[in-house]
Amino acid sequence: MQTAQEINRANGIDLNVLKETVSAIRKDPDLGKCKFRARNKWIDANHNCTTISGFYAAKQEMTHKQKFELHADEPPILAGEDEGANPVEHLLNALAGCVTTSLVAHAAVQGIHIESLESELEGDIDLRGFLGLAPDVPKGYTNIRVKFKVRTDSENMKKLKELAQFSPVYNTLTHGTNVDIEIEPS
Amino acid sequence: MQTAQEINRANGIDLNVLKETVSAIRKDPDLGKCKFRARNKWIDANHNCTTISGFYAAKQEMTHKQKFELHADEPPILAGEDEGANPVEHLLNALAGCVTTSLVAHAAVQGIHIESLESELEGDIDLRGFLGLAPDVPKGYTNIRVKFKVRTDSENMKKLKELAQFSPVYNTLTHGTNVDIEIEPS
Repeated sequence: MQTAQEINRANGIDLNVLKETVSAIRKDPDLGKCKFRARNKWIDANHNCTTISGFYAAKQEMTHKQKFELHADEPPILAGEDEGANPVEHLLNALAGCVTTSLVAHAAVQGIHIESLESELEGDIDLRGFLGLAPDVPKGYTNIRVKFKVRTDSENMKKLKELAQFSPVYNTLTHGTNVDIEIEPS
Repeated sequence: MQTAQEINRANGIDLNVLKETVSAIRKDPDLGKCKFRARNKWIDANHNCTTISGFYAAKQEMTHKQKFELHADEPPILAGEDEGANPVEHLLNALAGCVTTSLVAHAAVQGIHIESLESELEGDIDLRGFLGLAPDVPKGYTNIRVKFKVRTDSENMKKLKELAQFSPVYNTLTHGTNVDIEIEPS
């Protein structure tokens, strides 16, 4: 026997919470303005650590239930000790997580039941850009391929591809964004 | 007393390894072509997990010393359980780690000694984009601010700002990239 709470879940997501958020932002658009944050500390060589603890949303400062620590390093061939995924791999992680969440959440709202969802990502970087060996070679990713395998009704496939387009990280990567860097003495 | 190995380190980075890599790629540009990879599995609701284990570089398949697992979730206000940083926070982590590594490595090659380096990042997202409430509102980040505090000779500040521009994640975000998404039945 299902409880009322279970009935309001789709793809595991509490639709009541989601619908309340949508309704509140529709009434007061300023509630949708978010500021996400991270702090990073260089440890040694190519090893550094990011801490994520809070953000701004719904017109207030919010705190995560726990502090997240994420380590970045490089593999030995790139002069690191492999103490963490490297930053461009962390970027693929951000993209994978975001498209997955966007698919699952938007599908939930539209009544599309997803049984399972997995993805494989691969992106191309030519190190000559980063190393400054060829000014005409892009320093970042030139192409990223994301392949999803999803278990759902076959009629949902085309719709799911449309829903992937809502992903904030996907949009940041495909449209680009402004990044302002300031460097000051500590 | 320093050993020969210590003498060849700058900012903790083994300059011999770095110089060998640069020299090899200069002779054979194909050695610079890398493919970075990630796999993601949806767990439940907004919770998913990325695994990173290998990549392609220097014309061969490489394996990390350890497998990296990275969890993404959303905070309760975004209908999640806070089991991991959310994907747009993971994106800030990727940017923080990449600019930090780029600064430290390029500074090492140029003989710039960095004593300490920390950064704070903040990015703006208007949820109306992701939620589909306003088609004219961007779905991704509209602006990201990165503030570094660095302990080094004051004369290095301007140079460090130039070196930050080598970061692959910074360049991916500011120039944008192609992302191809395929969705298939599993």
